[in-house]
Amino acid sequence: MNRNNNHLVIMAGGVGSRFWPMSTPECPKQFIDVMGCGRTFIQLTMDRFKGIVPAENVWVVTSAKYAEIVKQQLPEVPEENILLEPCRRNTAPCIAYVCWRIKKKNPRANLVVTPSDHMVVDQDEFRRVITEALDFTADSDAIVTLGMKPTRPETGYGYIQADLTTPSLRHKSIYRVDKFREKPDLATAKEYVKHSEFFWNSGIFVWNVETIVNALRIYQSDIAQVFEELMPYLATENEQKMIDERFPQCPSISIDYAVMEKAEEIFVFPADFGWSDVGTWGSLITLVDKDSDGNAKIGNRIELHDSKNCIVHTSEEKRVVVQGLDGYIIAEKDDTLLICKLSEEQRIKEFSQD
Amino acid sequence: MNRNNNHLVIMAGGVGSRFWPMSTPECPKQFIDVMGCGRTFIQLTMDRFKGIVPAENVWVVTSAKYAEIVKQQLPEVPEENILLEPCRRNTAPCIAYVCWRIKKKNPRANLVVTPSDHMVVDQDEFRRVITEALDFTADSDAIVTLGMKPTRPETGYGYIQADLTTPSLRHKSIYRVDKFREKPDLATAKEYVKHSEFFWNSGIFVWNVETIVNALRIYQSDIAQVFEELMPYLATENEQKMIDERFPQCPSISIDYAVMEKAEEIFVFPADFGWSDVGTWGSLITLVDKDSDGNAKIGNRIELHDSKNCIVHTSEEKRVVVQGLDGYIIAEKDDTLLICKLSEEQRIKEFSQD
Repeated sequence: MNRNNNHLVIMAGGVGSRFWPMSTPECPKQFIDVMGCGRTFIQLTMDRFKGIVPAENVWVVTSAKYAEIVKQQLPEVPEENILLEPCRRNTAPCIAYVCWRIKKKNPRANLVVTPSDHMVVDQDEFRRVITEALDFTADSDAIVTLGMKPTRPETGYGYIQADLTTPSLRHKSIYRVDKFREKPDLATAKEYVKHSEFFWNSGIFVWNVETIVNALRIYQSDIAQVFEELMPYLATENEQKMIDERFPQCPSISIDYAVMEKAEEIFVFPADFGWSDVGTWGSLITLVDKDSDGNAKIGNRIELHDSKNCIVHTSEEKRVVVQGLDGYIIAEKDDTLLICKLSEEQRIKEFSQD
Repeated sequence: MNRNNNHLVIMAGGVGSRFWPMSTPECPKQFIDVMGCGRTFIQLTMDRFKGIVPAENVWVVTSAKYAEIVKQQLPEVPEENILLEPCRRNTAPCIAYVCWRIKKKNPRANLVVTPSDHMVVDQDEFRRVITEALDFTADSDAIVTLGMKPTRPETGYGYIQADLTTPSLRHKSIYRVDKFREKPDLATAKEYVKHSEFFWNSGIFVWNVETIVNALRIYQSDIAQVFEELMPYLATENEQKMIDERFPQCPSISIDYAVMEKAEEIFVFPADFGWSDVGTWGSLITLVDKDSDGNAKIGNRIELHDSKNCIVHTSEEKRVVVQGLDGYIIAEKDDTLLICKLSEEQRIKEFSQD
């Protein structure tokens, strides 16, 4: 594997409304130090690939309004590698754009596509899996998805059903995908976790650029056509102007639905590196350090009295004193404060929209 | 009664730590729009005396660090009427200072001394009582205290026991004081409210300046001596310098203990104008408008969901969303947030000291 062909695509266009007011449309979750570790999610995402992908091969696809935040938070990423979507069209057009752009620079590119706002606990294991997956796709037309060994009957994730009977010829732990499964109800999720062939779909994909461009040509010819026509303008001074004009014409469709569920050479690499999409306050509280009363404090000046099972997230300068709460989210940012029962967090999206 | 002899003394040196973080040492309760009505407590206090005391006869005694706030909030008060204590010495030295100062300007002055952070509901009744009390003391050496008809067995107030058998000769509703009573325990308070001669001590006193100066000479000769010696410097450019030097030598003692409990010509004027010292969040919540769930919202952008019996106090710009709380204080100011059960509010003082 030629390391110089390795590219990383970070998808950073999300709006993170479930973590309001910590996450806001002006500065969503991927740009926030959610864990209180001194690094934002997008920084942690890039950190994970040090030594695997050179900084000049890191690409970020995001909304125009986050361009400045990305430049600030990832100063090592070349400015021309920050691609700006004029509107949200789900993951397929986003991936198409960056793949055609990378292809123009290096048709031999081999790449990882990852969300920008997930968490990984075991960095070493993550790097092992990514490296082996890149090896697997460097010289083949395989699409490799990372499947997470489920630890609970989670209904918030999609699942990948593997065909465990026939491992791939070139890697004994990479299997053909039998079927992609949508987010299940609880009864179905409980069935899934009883069977060893079901994995959480992490949304992390590995493939070479030729493979994905071809797959899009076959399965999403309208999207492929847009970018074929844009090819002469990519990496020129007219790129943004033309993207702003043509990108909105793409249908809004996820890469799973657009390609994964249709492609032939699709594989799953089961992995166990402590992954979470950190999609809810409830999942965040399970991931961060807690005091002996089960309270998670993210912020420097937080005091809890007679309280348990709370998660408090504040800006560093804010002093917060909480007395007598059990099972609450307390989140404060700039001019907004939220206090909400953890068990009612699905209502936060509604609160954020006023 | 000559209205031009009427003076008002507003004592504004308190630190209001029970309302932290709404009230802070930098800007205590008397300088805050606690009720959300657009006026601070000290402004409301002065407003009550319009038409009774001319603005040039209003005096404020406060700490040097609040001088600018007082000037801003009470621009009608002449700057030389804002007297600055170099340190806190309770109410007796504070009242002595302002009385000697007023005596120098007008030995015929007749005055009301009032705290700056109390609330009065019935302004008309308040003005009637104050006017009649000033009439009573204009030409006599009486000290008149305003006694509030108790509506509950409050343990947070001192009580005044009146001798209801012999009203004063010149006003049928002003009685001699039998005894001052310290803040009682609950059993004692319950006894008090059963008997019609017990009244809450409002801390509002009416007297003429000669009376109080003489009383201090008799009962607190050390304090009187300090101000006798300072007399030549008062209302000169050396006033502050000399006060800063001598004031700290005064003993720290309350006017109740220093004079009231010892004086002969001491009267109580029972009144019922809806008074509160607003000493606790619990008392504040009873005084402000509430929604149908018993929530008091002071601030412009407060939303409560599934919540009741809460009091929320924020700066005007702050958006606050609360879900699922019953009986809590939520107070937010600048860089501090407090969430505390109303039933545990006695702990706020401790929280504020970290």
